[in-house]
Amino acid sequence: MKRLMTVLLAAATTLMLAGCNKDCETPAGEAAPQQTYKWKLVTSWPKNFPGLGTAPERFAKEVEALSGGRLKIHVYGAGELVPALQVFDAVSQGTAEMGHSGAYYWKGKAAAAQFFTSVPFGLTAQEMNGWIQYGGGQQLWEEVYAPFNILPMSGGNTGVQMGGWFNKEINSVDDLKGLKMRIPGLGGEVLARAGGTPVTLPGGEIFTSLQTGAIDATEWVGPYNDLAFGLYKVAKFYYYPGWHEPGSMMEFLINKDAYATLPADLQAIVRVAAKAVNDDMLAEYTTRNQSALVELIEKHHVDVRPFPADVLQTLKALSHEVVAEVAAGDPMSAKVYESFSSYRDKVKAYHAVSEQAYINAR
Amino acid sequence: MKRLMTVLLAAATTLMLAGCNKDCETPAGEAAPQQTYKWKLVTSWPKNFPGLGTAPERFAKEVEALSGGRLKIHVYGAGELVPALQVFDAVSQGTAEMGHSGAYYWKGKAAAAQFFTSVPFGLTAQEMNGWIQYGGGQQLWEEVYAPFNILPMSGGNTGVQMGGWFNKEINSVDDLKGLKMRIPGLGGEVLARAGGTPVTLPGGEIFTSLQTGAIDATEWVGPYNDLAFGLYKVAKFYYYPGWHEPGSMMEFLINKDAYATLPADLQAIVRVAAKAVNDDMLAEYTTRNQSALVELIEKHHVDVRPFPADVLQTLKALSHEVVAEVAAGDPMSAKVYESFSSYRDKVKAYHAVSEQAYINAR
Repeated sequence: MKRLMTVLLAAATTLMLAGCNKDCETPAGEAAPQQTYKWKLVTSWPKNFPGLGTAPERFAKEVEALSGGRLKIHVYGAGELVPALQVFDAVSQGTAEMGHSGAYYWKGKAAAAQFFTSVPFGLTAQEMNGWIQYGGGQQLWEEVYAPFNILPMSGGNTGVQMGGWFNKEINSVDDLKGLKMRIPGLGGEVLARAGGTPVTLPGGEIFTSLQTGAIDATEWVGPYNDLAFGLYKVAKFYYYPGWHEPGSMMEFLINKDAYATLPADLQAIVRVAAKAVNDDMLAEYTTRNQSALVELIEKHHVDVRPFPADVLQTLKALSHEVVAEVAAGDPMSAKVYESFSSYRDKVKAYHAVSEQAYINAR
Repeated sequence: MKRLMTVLLAAATTLMLAGCNKDCETPAGEAAPQQTYKWKLVTSWPKNFPGLGTAPERFAKEVEALSGGRLKIHVYGAGELVPALQVFDAVSQGTAEMGHSGAYYWKGKAAAAQFFTSVPFGLTAQEMNGWIQYGGGQQLWEEVYAPFNILPMSGGNTGVQMGGWFNKEINSVDDLKGLKMRIPGLGGEVLARAGGTPVTLPGGEIFTSLQTGAIDATEWVGPYNDLAFGLYKVAKFYYYPGWHEPGSMMEFLINKDAYATLPADLQAIVRVAAKAVNDDMLAEYTTRNQSALVELIEKHHVDVRPFPADVLQTLKALSHEVVAEVAAGDPMSAKVYESFSSYRDKVKAYHAVSEQAYINAR
């Protein structure tokens, strides 16, 4: 009813604005094409942060082009309208119609949200897209966010992240004991079980903490963002791979009431533009990360090292423990975990004869 | 000039159709929103062929939704309007406004086109997207197709294909000698140099040829399409990985004159919908391939085998030879090869510390 009123009001306004008399008709099938919508999109990233922050800007630009200017979206950096970690609440309450963030930040609202960014030893970017789009992930994600009046959509992926910057060598599992590392979320929980001390620090405090020795190590994103952050200046070793975030999917959050007021074509525009951004971000990271890695090694002589195999095996076993415990916490998490882990097992077997076999043969 | 006339004519028609008098105005910035365009899209696939053929159908549906019905695209299966391998000519000449196919089919028109689907021991799907979207690939592709009045866009990816179905065991390089295998394009050329006999057969003749022993082996796509084709019924072994097509990118072809007549918002709709389909197809194949592989193994007891390491090493060396010779053939191919191979070297180094390192540790 509310929607019908909105549409009728829009149609009436349009007719008045266009200066039409009663002979004017809106063509069949087009509900008030001239109505313009102005939306706010809040993010958890500094304004125009490379990759993560430029993606929602690109989204807003595409939506404006696709809609011929009928849907204009203003993107706010973290703290401009709401703080970085209040994006979920802002969209839920309608303070902003949209957000761009990472689902794992909302574990305090819904523990199951943690499965929708990246979990330790979980899915790669390609596999996350498979699970979300064709493996039942999208439906589960919508179910998790429904009580908050939010519709989620995939909003890009960084690909496999790096293991992080270290000032202590990691030669064995013993070297993890007592290690003070900035590593949030489930990865931090895994480190704690391995005897380390996970620390949560905002991005802006990482550099100094590493420099002063307040922390021994930190994870961040990957070569592209890490180079820009200058972390190579205050750390001795750059470890790989990023076992804790093997394919971090970002998210668009959409207030469901706001979405419902859009005509069908603008709803499609939001949905399809989000999907295009999802395609785009991984392509960008795949390209920029390689150039940044070359620069880190050739220009800044960074010592890039693999985690020893036994360290990775230990972290893997602990990761499965931690993730299974999340699943045991509540029925929704259990439901998501079942879908996620079943997909992971099957896609792992398939990629053993495709992506993995090929990339190892190349 | 031609475009201006089209727009003016469209605007005039719209006003007449809407039955408006002189007081009616088209809102600023919206060029004739009511004009409807009807396009034909020809493909190289049987109508609704799973994955490859359903992608352009999905594209057409999305474009109609995004445009509020202003751009309607009718999709034709191979042979319905033009034969499978005349898609390029049909779009070039304007018989159809769009096509969906694979660039390597057009090597007779432009040898450099072969780099824009997949080359033996080339890029994976994720890497192709990186090269096309952020590594200069798109610009080169447009340059290759410009003389034909065609604008190309990525149109989905199958991921790493399978090595194929064999009735002879491949235990050494010697087993490739005399092998009669259905394998088109550069992969076939590589097989020939290894002593085999590549055969080109349309999809419809593969099953019988394998059954009668006219061929010893065939490649097709991957588990999803191969299962549907029933190839497991007439072959003993299913080899991996698909070294010849490690991430086959499909393409949308767009007649440039037709594209130029569209208003800016419909141009954006075509471009962004194509990108969304590009994201979608890989997700679909990643999911459907894994289920199909399980069915092939568990229900049909297929013997899935890896190519021996020395066989892959030989095929790799020969592949680099064959691809370098394509590059030496003409200046445009040389230019594309330089960009492609430089990207491949860098992304390979990056994926050694990211995707590859992770997927091996998992």
